[in-house]
Amino acid sequence: MQKRLFEFDTATALEPLDVVDGVHHFATRVHPGWDILGNANGGYLMALVGRAVSMATGRPDCVTITAHYLAPCPAGDARITVTPVRAGRRFATTTASLFLSDANGGEKEIIRVLATVGDLATDPGGPSAMQRTMPEIAPFDECLLMSDTSVNDFAHIHGRLATRGQSEDIAFRSGSPSGRATMRGWFAFPDGRPINSTALLLASDAFPPAVFNLSLPAAWVPTVELTVHVRAIPAPGPVACFFDTRFVQNGLLEEDGEMWDANGVLVAQSRQLALAPRG
Amino acid sequence: MQKRLFEFDTATALEPLDVVDGVHHFATRVHPGWDILGNANGGYLMALVGRAVSMATGRPDCVTITAHYLAPCPAGDARITVTPVRAGRRFATTTASLFLSDANGGEKEIIRVLATVGDLATDPGGPSAMQRTMPEIAPFDECLLMSDTSVNDFAHIHGRLATRGQSEDIAFRSGSPSGRATMRGWFAFPDGRPINSTALLLASDAFPPAVFNLSLPAAWVPTVELTVHVRAIPAPGPVACFFDTRFVQNGLLEEDGEMWDANGVLVAQSRQLALAPRG
Repeated sequence: MQKRLFEFDTATALEPLDVVDGVHHFATRVHPGWDILGNANGGYLMALVGRAVSMATGRPDCVTITAHYLAPCPAGDARITVTPVRAGRRFATTTASLFLSDANGGEKEIIRVLATVGDLATDPGGPSAMQRTMPEIAPFDECLLMSDTSVNDFAHIHGRLATRGQSEDIAFRSGSPSGRATMRGWFAFPDGRPINSTALLLASDAFPPAVFNLSLPAAWVPTVELTVHVRAIPAPGPVACFFDTRFVQNGLLEEDGEMWDANGVLVAQSRQLALAPRG
Repeated sequence: MQKRLFEFDTATALEPLDVVDGVHHFATRVHPGWDILGNANGGYLMALVGRAVSMATGRPDCVTITAHYLAPCPAGDARITVTPVRAGRRFATTTASLFLSDANGGEKEIIRVLATVGDLATDPGGPSAMQRTMPEIAPFDECLLMSDTSVNDFAHIHGRLATRGQSEDIAFRSGSPSGRATMRGWFAFPDGRPINSTALLLASDAFPPAVFNLSLPAAWVPTVELTVHVRAIPAPGPVACFFDTRFVQNGLLEEDGEMWDANGVLVAQSRQLALAPRG
Protein backbone atom coordinates (compact mmCIF):
# COMPACT_ATOMS: atom_id res chain seq x y z
CA MET A 1 0.00 0.00 0.00
CA GLN A 2 1.42 3.33 -0.99
CA LYS A 3 1.29 6.13 1.51
CA ARG A 4 -0.68 9.02 0.09
CA LEU A 5 1.29 12.23 -0.08
CA PHE A 6 -0.77 15.19 1.00
CA GLU A 7 0.11 18.68 -0.21
CA PHE A 8 0.64 20.06 3.31
CA ASP A 9 3.10 17.26 4.07
CA THR A 10 5.03 18.00 0.91
CA ALA A 11 5.10 21.69 1.81
CA THR A 12 6.47 20.90 5.28
CA ALA A 13 8.86 18.12 4.25
CA LEU A 14 12.08 18.06 6.25
CA GLU A 15 15.40 16.41 5.62
CA PRO A 16 17.28 15.70 8.85
CA LEU A 17 20.90 16.75 8.34
CA ASP A 18 23.00 16.27 11.43
CA VAL A 19 23.09 16.86 15.16
CA VAL A 20 25.93 19.11 16.25
CA ASP A 21 26.45 19.75 19.97
CA GLY A 22 22.89 18.61 20.59
CA VAL A 23 21.42 20.97 17.97
CA HIS A 24 19.33 19.23 15.32
CA HIS A 25 19.66 20.64 11.79
CA PHE A 26 17.06 20.11 9.06
CA ALA A 27 17.00 21.14 5.42
CA THR A 28 13.62 22.30 4.17
CA ARG A 29 11.96 24.54 1.63
CA VAL A 30 9.52 27.37 2.19
CA HIS A 31 7.10 26.46 -0.60
CA PRO A 32 5.50 29.05 -2.87
CA GLY A 33 1.72 29.33 -2.76
CA TRP A 34 1.46 29.40 1.05
CA ASP A 35 1.90 33.16 1.06
CA ILE A 36 0.19 36.52 1.22
CA LEU A 37 1.61 38.76 -1.51
CA GLY A 38 4.77 36.68 -1.72
CA ASN A 39 5.51 36.33 2.00
CA ALA A 40 4.91 32.96 3.64
CA ASN A 41 1.96 32.78 6.02
CA GLY A 42 2.90 32.85 9.71
CA GLY A 43 0.95 29.72 10.58
CA TYR A 44 2.60 27.80 7.75
CA LEU A 45 6.05 28.82 9.01
CA MET A 46 5.10 27.83 12.56
CA ALA A 47 3.89 24.44 11.32
CA LEU A 48 7.16 23.89 9.45
CA VAL A 49 9.22 24.61 12.57
CA GLY A 50 6.77 22.77 14.83
CA ARG A 51 7.16 19.65 12.71
CA ALA A 52 10.95 19.89 13.05
CA VAL A 53 10.59 20.26 16.84
CA SER A 54 8.46 17.10 16.91
CA MET A 55 10.96 15.18 14.77
CA ALA A 56 13.91 16.29 16.89
CA THR A 57 12.23 15.37 20.18
CA GLY A 58 10.16 12.37 19.07
CA ARG A 59 7.10 14.02 20.64
CA PRO A 60 4.24 14.64 18.23
CA ASP A 61 2.35 17.59 19.76
CA CYS A 62 3.41 21.19 20.31
CA VAL A 63 1.41 21.70 23.51
CA THR A 64 2.50 25.34 23.67
CA ILE A 65 4.51 27.03 20.94
CA THR A 66 5.47 30.68 20.53
CA ALA A 67 7.01 32.19 17.41
CA HIS A 68 8.47 35.68 17.08
CA TYR A 69 8.49 36.89 13.48
CA LEU A 70 11.74 38.58 12.60
CA ALA A 71 11.51 39.19 8.83
CA PRO A 72 9.15 38.59 5.89
CA CYS A 73 9.79 35.25 4.17
CA PRO A 74 9.62 34.70 0.42
CA ALA A 75 9.72 31.09 -0.86
CA GLY A 76 13.10 29.40 -0.97
CA ASP A 77 15.48 26.90 0.54
CA ALA A 78 15.79 27.02 4.29
CA ARG A 79 17.38 25.43 7.31
CA ILE A 80 15.75 24.74 10.66
CA THR A 81 17.64 24.26 13.90
CA VAL A 82 16.12 22.73 17.01
CA THR A 83 17.96 23.12 20.31
CA PRO A 84 16.85 21.05 23.33
CA VAL A 85 16.32 22.96 26.57
CA ARG A 86 14.92 20.31 28.88
CA ALA A 87 13.41 16.86 28.47
CA GLY A 88 11.08 15.54 31.16
CA ARG A 89 8.72 12.59 31.27
CA ARG A 90 5.62 14.44 30.11
CA PHE A 91 7.05 17.45 28.24
CA ALA A 92 10.21 18.52 26.46
CA THR A 93 11.13 22.15 25.84
CA THR A 94 13.13 23.36 22.85
CA THR A 95 14.04 26.50 20.99
CA ALA A 96 14.08 26.50 17.20
CA SER A 97 14.78 28.82 14.29
CA LEU A 98 14.06 28.94 10.60
CA PHE A 99 16.79 30.45 8.42
CA LEU A 100 16.03 31.31 4.80
CA SER A 101 18.89 30.96 2.32
CA ASP A 102 19.71 34.04 0.30
CA ALA A 103 21.14 34.37 -3.19
CA ASN A 104 24.65 35.07 -1.88
CA GLY A 105 25.03 31.79 -0.02
CA GLY A 106 24.13 33.44 3.27
CA GLU A 107 21.00 33.04 5.32
CA LYS A 108 18.60 35.14 7.37
CA GLU A 109 16.71 34.15 10.50
CA ILE A 110 12.97 34.39 9.83
CA ILE A 111 11.34 33.11 13.01
CA ARG A 112 12.53 32.22 16.49
CA VAL A 113 10.45 29.66 18.35
CA LEU A 114 10.09 28.45 21.92
CA ALA A 115 8.04 25.26 22.27
CA THR A 116 7.07 22.70 24.86
CA VAL A 117 6.08 19.43 23.24
CA GLY A 118 4.43 16.25 24.45
CA ASP A 119 2.21 13.42 23.36
CA LEU A 120 -1.42 14.34 23.96
CA ALA A 121 -2.58 10.80 23.17
CA THR A 122 -0.69 9.44 26.18
CA ASP A 123 -1.28 12.39 28.52
CA PRO A 124 -2.11 11.48 32.10
CA GLY A 125 -5.40 13.38 31.84
CA GLY A 126 -6.80 15.19 34.86
CA PRO A 127 -9.80 17.32 35.73
CA SER A 128 -11.97 19.00 33.10
CA ALA A 129 -14.33 21.90 33.81
CA MET A 130 -15.37 23.75 30.67
CA GLN A 131 -16.67 27.25 31.44
CA ARG A 132 -17.66 28.02 27.85
CA THR A 133 -19.10 26.08 24.96
CA MET A 134 -18.21 26.34 21.31
CA PRO A 135 -18.99 29.78 19.86
CA GLU A 136 -21.84 30.05 17.36
CA ILE A 137 -20.40 29.29 13.94
CA ALA A 138 -22.54 28.75 10.84
CA PRO A 139 -22.66 25.14 9.59
CA PHE A 140 -19.86 24.02 7.26
CA ASP A 141 -22.09 23.95 4.17
CA GLU A 142 -23.36 27.48 4.78
CA CYS A 143 -19.86 28.94 4.94
CA LEU A 144 -18.13 30.07 1.76
CA LEU A 145 -15.10 28.32 0.33
CA MET A 146 -12.28 30.86 0.63
CA SER A 147 -10.50 29.45 -2.43
CA ASP A 148 -13.52 30.44 -4.53
CA THR A 149 -13.04 34.07 -3.61
CA SER A 150 -11.02 37.00 -4.87
CA VAL A 151 -8.87 36.77 -1.75
CA ASN A 152 -6.70 34.37 -3.73
CA ASP A 153 -5.46 37.27 -5.80
CA PHE A 154 -3.15 38.22 -2.95
CA ALA A 155 -3.72 35.70 -0.12
CA HIS A 156 -2.47 32.77 -2.18
CA ILE A 157 -2.56 30.48 0.83
CA HIS A 158 -6.32 30.12 0.42
CA GLY A 159 -5.64 28.28 -2.83
CA ARG A 160 -3.90 25.56 -0.78
CA LEU A 161 -6.78 25.15 1.66
CA ALA A 162 -10.44 24.16 1.69
CA THR A 163 -11.08 26.66 4.47
CA ARG A 164 -14.55 28.21 4.61
CA GLY A 165 -15.55 31.60 5.99
CA GLN A 166 -18.84 32.66 7.53
CA SER A 167 -20.50 34.96 5.01
CA GLU A 168 -20.90 38.08 7.19
CA ASP A 169 -17.29 37.81 8.39
CA ILE A 170 -15.80 37.68 4.91
CA ALA A 171 -18.15 40.24 3.36
CA PHE A 172 -15.37 42.83 3.87
CA ARG A 173 -13.98 41.51 0.57
CA SER A 174 -16.99 42.94 -1.25
CA GLY A 175 -16.72 46.21 0.67
CA SER A 176 -19.16 45.33 3.45
CA PRO A 177 -17.18 44.87 6.65
CA SER A 178 -19.43 43.62 9.45
CA GLY A 179 -18.17 46.23 11.93
CA ARG A 180 -17.42 43.38 14.34
CA ALA A 181 -13.79 42.22 14.64
CA THR A 182 -14.70 38.55 14.37
CA MET A 183 -13.72 35.87 11.83
CA ARG A 184 -15.50 32.53 11.91
CA GLY A 185 -15.37 29.49 9.67
CA TRP A 186 -14.02 26.01 9.11
CA PHE A 187 -10.48 24.86 8.48
CA ALA A 188 -9.92 21.90 6.13
CA PHE A 189 -7.51 20.65 3.48
CA PRO A 190 -8.71 20.17 -0.13
CA ASP A 191 -7.06 16.74 -0.36
CA GLY A 192 -8.67 15.50 2.84
CA ARG A 193 -5.47 15.46 4.88
CA PRO A 194 -6.33 14.77 8.53
CA ILE A 195 -5.97 17.77 10.81
CA ASN A 196 -3.34 16.84 13.37
CA SER A 197 -1.63 19.10 15.88
CA THR A 198 0.84 20.42 13.27
CA ALA A 199 -2.06 21.43 10.99
CA LEU A 200 -3.65 23.30 13.91
CA LEU A 201 -0.59 25.58 13.96
CA LEU A 202 -1.39 26.44 10.35
CA ALA A 203 -5.10 26.85 11.11
CA SER A 204 -4.32 29.38 13.84
CA ASP A 205 -3.26 31.93 11.21
CA ALA A 206 -5.12 30.73 8.08
CA PHE A 207 -8.04 33.18 8.08
CA PRO A 208 -8.07 36.86 7.10
CA PRO A 209 -7.43 39.17 10.08
CA ALA A 210 -10.58 39.75 12.14
CA VAL A 211 -9.85 43.49 12.07
CA PHE A 212 -10.57 43.60 8.35
CA ASN A 213 -14.18 43.92 9.55
CA LEU A 214 -13.43 47.26 11.20
CA SER A 215 -13.05 50.58 9.47
CA LEU A 216 -9.28 50.41 9.38
CA PRO A 217 -7.06 50.49 6.31
CA ALA A 218 -7.14 47.08 4.52
CA ALA A 219 -3.38 46.68 4.64
CA TRP A 220 -0.88 44.10 5.81
CA VAL A 221 -1.26 42.97 9.46
CA PRO A 222 2.22 41.64 10.24
CA THR A 223 2.41 39.20 13.14
CA VAL A 224 4.94 40.11 15.84
CA GLU A 225 4.28 37.07 18.01
CA LEU A 226 1.99 34.03 17.79
CA THR A 227 1.37 31.52 20.56
CA VAL A 228 -0.69 28.36 20.06
CA HIS A 229 -1.80 25.96 22.78
CA VAL A 230 -2.79 22.60 21.34
CA ARG A 231 -5.35 21.27 23.79
CA ALA A 232 -6.38 17.99 22.14
CA ILE A 233 -5.91 15.95 18.96
CA PRO A 234 -8.81 16.72 16.60
CA ALA A 235 -11.35 14.06 15.64
CA PRO A 236 -11.63 13.47 11.85
CA GLY A 237 -13.36 16.22 9.89
CA PRO A 238 -13.04 19.99 9.50
CA VAL A 239 -12.19 22.18 12.48
CA ALA A 240 -14.46 25.06 13.48
CA CYS A 241 -12.47 28.26 13.97
CA PHE A 242 -13.33 31.44 15.82
CA PHE A 243 -11.06 34.48 15.87
CA ASP A 244 -11.61 37.87 17.40
CA THR A 245 -9.75 41.04 18.19
CA ARG A 246 -10.81 43.08 21.18
CA PHE A 247 -8.17 45.75 21.53
CA VAL A 248 -6.60 47.76 18.74
CA GLN A 249 -4.52 50.30 20.61
CA ASN A 250 -1.73 52.55 19.39
CA GLY A 251 -1.07 50.49 16.31
CA LEU A 252 -0.95 47.08 18.02
CA LEU A 253 -3.66 44.46 18.28
CA GLU A 254 -4.17 40.98 19.64
CA GLU A 255 -6.12 38.29 17.81
CA ASP A 256 -7.43 35.38 19.87
CA GLY A 257 -8.41 32.08 18.29
CA GLU A 258 -10.38 29.03 19.35
CA MET A 259 -10.46 25.82 17.33
CA TRP A 260 -13.02 23.06 17.94
CA ASP A 261 -13.24 19.63 16.35
CA ALA A 262 -16.26 17.83 14.87
CA ASN A 263 -17.08 16.35 18.28
CA GLY A 264 -17.22 19.79 19.90
CA VAL A 265 -13.88 19.35 21.68
CA LEU A 266 -11.62 22.39 22.10
CA VAL A 267 -8.48 21.42 20.18
CA ALA A 268 -6.46 24.64 20.22
CA GLN A 269 -6.32 28.23 21.39
CA SER A 270 -4.16 30.91 19.87
CA ARG A 271 -3.24 34.50 20.50
CA GLN A 272 -1.14 36.74 18.35
CA LEU A 273 0.21 40.25 18.73
CA ALA A 274 0.25 42.07 15.40
CA LEU A 275 0.81 45.51 13.98
CA ALA A 276 -2.48 47.20 13.14
CA PRO A 277 -2.93 47.94 9.44
CA ARG A 278 -1.86 51.41 8.33
CA GLY A 279 -3.06 53.24 5.27
CA MET B 1 18.45 63.77 46.88
CA GLN B 2 18.66 60.10 47.62
CA LYS B 3 16.92 57.72 45.28
CA ARG B 4 14.33 55.71 47.15
CA LEU B 5 14.91 51.99 47.00
CA PHE B 6 11.66 50.13 46.51
CA GLU B 7 11.34 46.52 47.65
CA PHE B 8 10.52 45.21 44.16
CA ASP B 9 13.65 46.88 42.76
CA THR B 10 15.77 45.28 45.45
CA ALA B 11 14.19 41.91 44.72
CA THR B 12 14.98 42.27 41.00
CA ALA B 13 18.43 43.85 41.35
CA LEU B 14 20.90 42.74 38.70
CA GLU B 15 24.64 42.95 38.50
CA PRO B 16 25.90 43.00 34.91
CA LEU B 17 28.85 40.62 34.67
CA ASP B 18 30.25 40.38 31.18
CA VAL B 19 29.27 39.97 27.55
CA VAL B 20 30.69 36.82 25.96
CA ASP B 21 30.09 36.21 22.24
CA GLY B 22 27.20 38.66 22.37
CA VAL B 23 25.55 36.94 25.35
CA HIS B 24 24.94 39.24 28.33
CA HIS B 25 25.46 37.68 31.75
CA PHE B 26 23.94 39.04 34.96
CA ALA B 27 24.28 37.96 38.58
CA THR B 28 21.08 38.14 40.58
CA ARG B 29 19.28 36.61 43.50
CA VAL B 30 15.87 34.99 43.64
CA HIS B 31 14.67 36.63 46.85
CA PRO B 32 12.73 34.78 49.53
CA GLY B 33 9.21 36.00 50.26
CA TRP B 34 8.13 36.19 46.60
CA ASP B 35 7.04 32.57 46.68
CA ILE B 36 4.17 30.15 47.06
CA LEU B 37 5.17 27.42 49.51
CA GLY B 38 8.85 28.10 48.92
CA ASN B 39 8.83 28.29 45.12
CA ALA B 40 9.25 31.70 43.49
CA ASN B 41 6.16 33.11 41.80
CA GLY B 42 6.17 32.85 38.00
CA GLY B 43 5.46 36.54 37.43
CA TYR B 44 8.30 37.53 39.76
CA LEU B 45 10.72 35.30 37.82
CA MET B 46 9.46 36.74 34.52
CA ALA B 47 9.97 40.28 35.84
CA LEU B 48 13.52 39.42 36.93
CA VAL B 49 14.41 38.11 33.47
CA GLY B 50 12.43 40.85 31.72
CA ARG B 51 14.45 43.47 33.55
CA ALA B 52 17.68 41.79 32.40
CA VAL B 53 16.39 41.76 28.81
CA SER B 54 15.69 45.50 29.07
CA MET B 55 19.14 46.20 30.52
CA ALA B 56 20.89 44.13 27.84
CA THR B 57 19.03 45.79 24.98
CA GLY B 58 18.59 49.30 26.37
CA ARG B 59 14.86 49.03 25.59
CA PRO B 60 12.58 49.47 28.60
CA ASP B 61 9.43 47.57 27.65
CA CYS B 62 8.85 43.86 27.04
CA VAL B 63 6.15 44.31 24.38
CA THR B 64 5.69 40.55 24.15
CA ILE B 65 7.41 38.10 26.44
CA THR B 66 6.94 34.34 26.80
CA ALA B 67 8.41 32.21 29.56
CA HIS B 68 8.44 28.42 29.73
CA TYR B 69 8.79 27.14 33.29
CA LEU B 70 11.22 24.26 33.53
CA ALA B 71 11.59 23.64 37.26
CA PRO B 72 10.36 24.96 40.61
CA CYS B 73 12.59 27.72 42.00
CA PRO B 74 13.48 28.12 45.68
CA ALA B 75 15.25 31.35 46.72
CA GLY B 76 18.96 31.58 46.02
CA ASP B 77 21.74 33.02 43.94
CA ALA B 78 21.15 32.97 40.21
CA ARG B 79 22.53 33.93 36.85
CA ILE B 80 20.62 35.36 33.90
CA THR B 81 21.79 35.20 30.31
CA VAL B 82 20.35 37.35 27.55
CA THR B 83 21.12 36.43 23.93
CA PRO B 84 20.27 38.90 21.16
CA VAL B 85 18.33 37.49 18.20
CA ARG B 86 17.59 40.58 16.12
CA ALA B 87 17.69 44.32 16.69
CA GLY B 88 15.52 46.57 14.53
CA ARG B 89 14.54 50.20 14.80
CA ARG B 90 11.30 49.66 16.71
CA PHE B 91 11.81 46.24 18.34
CA ALA B 92 14.61 43.95 19.43
CA THR B 93 14.16 40.22 20.01
CA THR B 94 16.14 38.19 22.53
CA THR B 95 16.14 34.87 24.29
CA ALA B 96 17.00 34.69 27.97
CA SER B 97 17.36 32.16 30.77
CA LEU B 98 17.50 32.16 34.53
CA PHE B 99 19.81 29.60 36.11
CA LEU B 100 19.59 28.96 39.86
CA SER B 101 22.82 28.04 41.64
CA ASP B 102 22.79 24.81 43.56
CA ALA B 103 24.71 23.79 46.67
CA ASN B 104 27.28 21.83 44.65
CA GLY B 105 28.51 24.78 42.61
CA GLY B 106 26.34 23.74 39.67
CA GLU B 107 23.23 25.45 38.34
CA LYS B 108 19.84 24.53 36.97
CA GLU B 109 17.84 26.32 34.28
CA ILE B 110 14.55 27.51 35.76
CA ILE B 111 12.89 29.48 32.96
CA ARG B 112 13.56 30.00 29.27
CA VAL B 113 12.28 33.24 27.78
CA LEU B 114 11.63 34.66 24.32
CA ALA B 115 10.97 38.41 24.31
CA THR B 116 10.52 41.25 21.87
CA VAL B 117 11.28 44.58 23.50
CA GLY B 118 10.77 48.18 22.56
CA ASP B 119 10.13 51.62 23.98
CA LEU B 120 6.39 52.20 24.23
CA ALA B 121 6.91 55.88 25.08
CA THR B 122 8.47 56.52 21.68
CA ASP B 123 6.28 54.14 19.66
CA PRO B 124 5.10 55.47 16.32
CA GLY B 125 1.47 54.97 17.37
CA GLY B 126 -1.15 54.02 14.82
CA PRO B 127 -4.86 53.27 14.73
CA SER B 128 -6.88 52.44 17.85
CA ALA B 129 -10.27 50.72 17.80
CA MET B 130 -11.24 49.30 21.16
CA GLN B 131 -13.93 46.62 20.86
CA ARG B 132 -14.31 46.12 24.61
CA THR B 133 -14.22 48.34 27.66
CA MET B 134 -12.73 47.58 31.04
CA PRO B 135 -14.46 44.64 32.78
CA GLU B 136 -16.55 45.41 35.86
CA ILE B 137 -14.21 45.38 38.85
CA ALA B 138 -15.24 46.57 42.30
CA PRO B 139 -13.68 49.89 43.39
CA PHE B 140 -10.23 49.72 44.98
CA ASP B 141 -11.53 50.53 48.48
CA GLU B 142 -14.16 47.81 48.32
CA CYS B 143 -11.63 45.10 47.46
CA LEU B 144 -9.83 43.26 50.25
CA LEU B 145 -6.11 43.61 50.91
CA MET B 146 -4.66 40.19 50.11
CA SER B 147 -1.85 40.68 52.63
CA ASP B 148 -4.47 40.84 55.40
CA THR B 149 -5.65 37.36 54.58
CA SER B 150 -4.69 33.84 55.51
CA VAL B 151 -3.36 33.34 51.97
CA ASN B 152 -0.06 34.61 53.33
CA ASP B 153 0.37 31.36 55.18
CA PHE B 154 1.42 29.72 51.92
CA ALA B 155 1.29 32.37 49.17
CA HIS B 156 3.99 34.49 50.79
CA ILE B 157 4.15 36.77 47.76
CA HIS B 158 1.01 38.55 48.95
CA GLY B 159 3.04 39.82 51.90
CA ARG B 160 5.21 41.75 49.38
CA LEU B 161 2.26 43.33 47.62
CA ALA B 162 -0.63 45.67 48.35
CA THR B 163 -2.79 43.75 45.91
CA ARG B 164 -6.53 43.69 46.59
CA GLY B 165 -9.04 41.01 45.60
CA GLN B 166 -12.73 41.41 44.90
CA SER B 167 -14.57 39.80 47.82
CA GLU B 168 -16.61 37.20 45.93
CA ASP B 169 -13.54 36.09 43.95
CA ILE B 170 -11.39 35.47 47.02
CA ALA B 171 -14.14 33.97 49.16
CA PHE B 172 -12.79 30.53 48.16
CA ARG B 173 -10.32 31.06 51.02
CA SER B 174 -13.14 30.82 53.52
CA GLY B 175 -14.60 27.80 51.74
CA SER B 176 -17.06 29.67 49.52
CA PRO B 177 -15.80 29.47 45.93
CA SER B 178 -17.94 31.61 43.63
CA GLY B 179 -18.36 28.84 41.06
CA ARG B 180 -17.10 31.29 38.42
CA ALA B 181 -13.47 30.95 37.27
CA THR B 182 -12.81 34.66 37.58
CA MET B 183 -10.34 36.61 39.72
CA ARG B 184 -10.64 40.39 39.89
CA GLY B 185 -8.85 43.04 41.89
CA TRP B 186 -6.18 45.70 41.98
CA PHE B 187 -2.42 45.35 41.78
CA ALA B 188 -0.26 47.75 43.81
CA PHE B 189 2.95 47.85 45.81
CA PRO B 190 2.85 48.58 49.58
CA ASP B 191 5.72 51.09 49.28
CA GLY B 192 4.09 53.02 46.45
CA ARG B 193 6.51 51.89 43.75
CA PRO B 194 5.21 53.03 40.37
CA ILE B 195 3.87 50.23 38.19
CA ASN B 196 6.02 50.17 35.09
CA SER B 197 6.11 47.54 32.36
CA THR B 198 8.37 45.25 34.43
CA ALA B 199 5.90 45.36 37.32
CA LEU B 200 3.11 44.39 34.92
CA LEU B 201 4.94 41.10 34.29
CA LEU B 202 4.69 40.46 38.04
CA ALA B 203 1.04 41.55 38.12
CA SER B 204 0.15 39.03 35.41
CA ASP B 205 0.68 36.16 37.84
CA ALA B 206 0.18 37.84 41.24
CA PHE B 207 -3.38 36.73 42.00
CA PRO B 208 -4.64 33.33 43.12
CA PRO B 209 -5.61 31.09 40.19
CA ALA B 210 -9.11 31.87 38.90
CA VAL B 211 -9.89 28.13 38.98
CA PHE B 212 -9.78 28.15 42.77
CA ASN B 213 -13.37 29.30 42.40
CA LEU B 214 -14.38 26.03 40.79
CA SER B 215 -14.95 22.75 42.56
CA LEU B 216 -11.49 21.44 41.79
CA PRO B 217 -8.87 20.36 44.32
CA ALA B 218 -7.23 23.44 45.88
CA ALA B 219 -3.73 22.36 44.95
CA TRP B 220 -0.73 23.82 43.14
CA VAL B 221 -1.43 25.17 39.62
CA PRO B 222 2.04 25.08 38.03
CA THR B 223 2.52 27.36 35.05
CA VAL B 224 3.83 25.67 31.92
CA GLU B 225 3.95 28.81 29.80
CA LEU B 226 3.13 32.48 30.38
CA THR B 227 2.93 35.17 27.70
CA VAL B 228 2.44 38.85 28.50
CA HIS B 229 1.78 41.61 25.97
CA VAL B 230 2.52 45.03 27.45
CA ARG B 231 0.20 47.35 25.56
CA ALA B 232 0.92 50.69 27.27
CA ILE B 233 2.83 52.24 30.15
CA PRO B 234 0.46 52.56 33.13
CA ALA B 235 -0.56 55.95 34.51
CA PRO B 236 0.23 56.43 38.22
CA GLY B 237 -1.95 54.48 40.64
CA PRO B 238 -3.05 50.88 41.11
CA VAL B 239 -3.78 48.67 38.11
CA ALA B 240 -7.16 46.94 37.78
CA CYS B 241 -6.73 43.26 37.01
CA PHE B 242 -9.15 40.74 35.54
CA PHE B 243 -8.30 37.06 35.12
CA ASP B 244 -10.45 34.23 33.91
CA THR B 245 -10.19 30.62 32.88
CA ARG B 246 -12.59 29.29 30.30
CA PHE B 247 -11.33 25.83 29.49
CA VAL B 248 -10.10 23.24 31.97
CA GLN B 249 -9.64 20.17 29.79
CA ASN B 250 -7.76 16.96 30.48
CA GLY B 251 -5.69 18.48 33.24
CA LEU B 252 -4.62 21.64 31.39
CA LEU B 253 -6.09 25.11 31.62
CA GLU B 254 -5.49 28.56 30.24
CA GLU B 255 -5.79 31.73 32.32
CA ASP B 256 -6.27 35.01 30.47
CA GLY B 257 -5.53 38.36 32.08
CA GLU B 258 -6.34 41.97 31.34
CA MET B 259 -4.71 44.86 33.18
CA TRP B 260 -6.08 48.42 33.04
CA ASP B 261 -4.58 51.59 34.47
CA ALA B 262 -6.26 54.34 36.49
CA ASN B 263 -7.16 56.18 33.27
CA GLY B 264 -8.99 53.14 31.89
CA VAL B 265 -6.21 52.34 29.41
CA LEU B 266 -5.47 48.68 28.63
CA VAL B 267 -1.86 48.28 29.78
CA ALA B 268 -1.32 44.52 29.43
CA GLN B 269 -2.85 41.22 28.42
CA SER B 270 -1.63 37.84 29.56
CA ARG B 271 -2.33 34.20 28.90
CA GLN B 272 -0.85 31.24 30.64
CA LEU B 273 -1.10 27.50 30.14
CA ALA B 274 -1.02 25.67 33.45
CA LEU B 275 -1.56 22.22 34.89
CA ALA B 276 -4.98 21.92 36.50
CA PRO B 277 -4.86 21.25 40.24
CA ARG B 278 -5.02 17.59 41.23
CA GLY B 279 -6.14 16.24 44.56
